Amino acid sequence: MDLRAKRRYGGGMPRFALRVEYDGGPFAGWQRQADQPSIQGAIEAALARLEPGPHAIAAAGRTDAGVHGLAQVAHCDLQKDWEPFRLSEALNHHLKPAPVAIVGAARVAEDWHARFTAVERRYLYRILLRRAPATHLRGLVWRVGRDLDVGAMQAGADHLVGHHDFTTFRSSICQAASPVKTLDALRVELVEDLWGPEVRFHVRARSFLHNQVRSFVGTLERVGAGRWRPEDVGVALAARDRAACGPVAPPQGLYLAGVVYPDDPFGAGQSR
Amino acid sequence: MDLRAKRRYGGGMPRFALRVEYDGGPFAGWQRQADQPSIQGAIEAALARLEPGPHAIAAAGRTDAGVHGLAQVAHCDLQKDWEPFRLSEALNHHLKPAPVAIVGAARVAEDWHARFTAVERRYLYRILLRRAPATHLRGLVWRVGRDLDVGAMQAGADHLVGHHDFTTFRSSICQAASPVKTLDALRVELVEDLWGPEVRFHVRARSFLHNQVRSFVGTLERVGAGRWRPEDVGVALAARDRAACGPVAPPQGLYLAGVVYPDDPFGAGQSR
Repeated sequence: MDLRAKRRYGGGMPRFALRVEYDGGPFAGWQRQADQPSIQGAIEAALARLEPGPHAIAAAGRTDAGVHGLAQVAHCDLQKDWEPFRLSEALNHHLKPAPVAIVGAARVAEDWHARFTAVERRYLYRILLRRAPATHLRGLVWRVGRDLDVGAMQAGADHLVGHHDFTTFRSSICQAASPVKTLDALRVELVEDLWGPEVRFHVRARSFLHNQVRSFVGTLERVGAGRWRPEDVGVALAARDRAACGPVAPPQGLYLAGVVYPDDPFGAGQSR
Repeated sequence: MDLRAKRRYGGGMPRFALRVEYDGGPFAGWQRQADQPSIQGAIEAALARLEPGPHAIAAAGRTDAGVHGLAQVAHCDLQKDWEPFRLSEALNHHLKPAPVAIVGAARVAEDWHARFTAVERRYLYRILLRRAPATHLRGLVWRVGRDLDVGAMQAGADHLVGHHDFTTFRSSICQAASPVKTLDALRVELVEDLWGPEVRFHVRARSFLHNQVRSFVGTLERVGAGRWRPEDVGVALAARDRAACGPVAPPQGLYLAGVVYPDDPFGAGQSR
């Protein structure tokens, strides 16, 4: 490492931020496990093809089994001061045939942390509205065979935005210290693409509780179907009781869609 | 069958039009084959679960291995005068887990023919523009790791529209009686979705030669990459020589996107 890089990034091992896209279908989740395939494990194995391991990467958010990444962010420490684009190309080569791709790479300071430096997470949830089974989108959406009232779902969602105790929308195994979080945005959008109408939920917060987005979406689907009124969402929130939550939406519609940092490390290092 | 239906549709076995969506990836193509999976074979097997077979369905267009259907149209003759929506639901039940879905069904006259009554076919071709391998879109797009000039591709495409001898863009095994066809439209569009920029080619004609769309797209990609000038497409067309064609684009980006009939049988019978 030259002196200029040392001043800029610190004097230890070079640290790299990776923006990661993945199909969560074949994996038991992001987190490395001894006996099951994981996205973390796949990337660490690819890193070991570049430099002897073991490697231990950290991610902005751990996604559950079946949940997808569009722009998950992780970081790794390497011996060599890789040119970021070459690093992503080499990792993509070794990741084949796993459905995991490095879509951005950047050199970051040695105290930069994919999880702790993040100031916002963004999730996307996709519902495909049609009776017929999904073909090309199998495992990529929650298919709901009825029309949903998008305006009513947005009205329900508006009750959730802000600083609240989200106990109602938190899984029983959630390990967060506090159920109090600030939800910055929950926008419900209807889009029409090749496979028919699709509802997309765009959700933003500094951090999330376990199953929070899937609990929101499962509850809002009840509103869209006319089984709940929009204001019932506010009542459920105020109950601060897991039993007041609607059904939890299935994992395959959920995507970790972005992670925001004070200075976007991928500003110029994007390889998508 | 009641008298009114008999007058409207004819007195023979009830005929049904089916709009079919499928992921071509696991199949050797549309057409039934003795020893390999086909979309036709999957649908005929599902029909045999409803009424004893054998069943022989006819389709508007036979797609090659790996090519997808968004709105392929086929017809079948059944004993029972099925309510069309119930027929599509029953077929979808028996088609599982094949990635084939009936997204529309309609009762049609007994002389209506999915192939011969059709007056226009529509194809879509998708190119994903990015370096990183596809994950969620694997097998659903042609990934091209360079920027393509959409304006130049459209200028090249404009040379192809109209009534021409398309020998240059016809596979050597094409069985059409004549290479002279009328291309009604070839529109090149840049769209941005979750996975990055994507080029979509929208192609319309009464009928197509074998590999015609893939030959168009492979050639236009050369234009988009700057290797061919737009006017070279006109020169290649005028050559009426297969050797003048650019590379043939791979099958997985191609979708049979629609079939047009004088009276749309799915007007009210759409179950998507």
